[in-house]
Amino acid sequence: MNNSPIGVFDSGIGGLTVVREIRKSLPGEDIIYLGDTARLPYGTKSFDAIIQFSRENTKFLLARGVKFIVIACYSSTSVALEILQKEFSIPIIGVIKPGVKKALGMTKNKKVGVIGTTLTIQSGAYEKAFQELANDVEVIGRPCPLFVPLVEEGFIDHLATELVAKEYLEPLKKDNIDTLLLGCTHFPLLLNVIKKILGDINYVDASRELGKELANLLAEKNLLNPSGRGDVTVYLTDFSMNFKEIAERFLGEPLKNYFRAGLSST
Amino acid sequence: MNNSPIGVFDSGIGGLTVVREIRKSLPGEDIIYLGDTARLPYGTKSFDAIIQFSRENTKFLLARGVKFIVIACYSSTSVALEILQKEFSIPIIGVIKPGVKKALGMTKNKKVGVIGTTLTIQSGAYEKAFQELANDVEVIGRPCPLFVPLVEEGFIDHLATELVAKEYLEPLKKDNIDTLLLGCTHFPLLLNVIKKILGDINYVDASRELGKELANLLAEKNLLNPSGRGDVTVYLTDFSMNFKEIAERFLGEPLKNYFRAGLSST
Repeated sequence: MNNSPIGVFDSGIGGLTVVREIRKSLPGEDIIYLGDTARLPYGTKSFDAIIQFSRENTKFLLARGVKFIVIACYSSTSVALEILQKEFSIPIIGVIKPGVKKALGMTKNKKVGVIGTTLTIQSGAYEKAFQELANDVEVIGRPCPLFVPLVEEGFIDHLATELVAKEYLEPLKKDNIDTLLLGCTHFPLLLNVIKKILGDINYVDASRELGKELANLLAEKNLLNPSGRGDVTVYLTDFSMNFKEIAERFLGEPLKNYFRAGLSST
Repeated sequence: MNNSPIGVFDSGIGGLTVVREIRKSLPGEDIIYLGDTARLPYGTKSFDAIIQFSRENTKFLLARGVKFIVIACYSSTSVALEILQKEFSIPIIGVIKPGVKKALGMTKNKKVGVIGTTLTIQSGAYEKAFQELANDVEVIGRPCPLFVPLVEEGFIDHLATELVAKEYLEPLKKDNIDTLLLGCTHFPLLLNVIKKILGDINYVDASRELGKELANLLAEKNLLNPSGRGDVTVYLTDFSMNFKEIAERFLGEPLKNYFRAGLSST
């Protein structure tokens, strides 16, 4: 038993979808969330920059007494998770492995597609995660960088988004995949558009799997907090325009406790 | 006479188009350029964040002995120029006024459109700049936030970009503007797409005007460097993917001297 909060960080507020899923599996746990809105997006920057930002985010959460850290950002998980796990003694998990496990249970023809930011796909993190668990799966990655700003600007059901999606996803159709991993917090919001192109295959949103995995890990390590109140505290490095409204859409409930994290301290 | 370099900063590398224009007017001047690629984009963040980033960029250039500062970023000019001019004694100019002057000389029906990032349009900086120079011009602003990532991802002549442009620009057509200010470093690259929707009106790219204005100001303040070699030194807070290739496209010549600026010092 441990009544300290769980720490979650992301490049922005999209990772609140991960918090929502954690709360379904672990409603009593307190959560401290850090969104690095001053420096987002992560997916178009260098590996070095994302590793440094992720290290700073981890230290910020450690200073607030968390018992476990969840990286809700796929770009950050791709390039920084293993480095942070070596550098810090606190348990840290990311969003890639839970989705990979789920996809392995679903694919029949062993051809799995992965879409994400350019950084996530270039990192090769998904190929590596699959290889650790199975050596007979063909992994086909496609970067879809414009999906992030299209979602952020609300172009969800827009024909322009369909055209961009067509350009990004048509090659995956030819690859005959039967399962697609949505490797970015924003992509589940485009599932309808993606389905129009790739049709009736399996789709994996890792945030759901992560909630369950985290519950198992906390139980295993005896870190559960059965008497907690389930408080969510959100820190953002910038209060960008309409952040509260957008955050509540991702979180699925009102944002009660939110603070601006000092830009220079993160 | 003053043989110190001119300092230029931008949120990324798009501001190198401004450097290119400065070099046409002032080929002998040395230029130090700072692109804050680790924290870009600026146009979707808060006023407070952009003011702080701009202050840090100014200090970085001052520490390298510049004689004059040019803000090549429209978002930064919109919210931080006047504040920086009060806080620092070095002369500082931005990209908004030179374009406004040019537009005033071109408009016949006194209806001028401005497109830019959400931050630039929300700041009201263009309305203010017009009011200072003329009180009979109607200024109609339209935020076009997706133009930035579309250009950065190379969707220049893509149908998706046309559809986004149509959605953003159709209202300006109804407003019967005869002149459009391109209020973002990336937008001149979309001029063909923009012309398809708004047709044969006047288009103003302020970076060209800024080169001439800067030459006049340096002469006026006796700051010209007639014997300079015209060296360009580029500092970037992150070496993001393909930065060199993209930077050379914006600058219009090979990038010879470039360094990574320490992330924590900016």
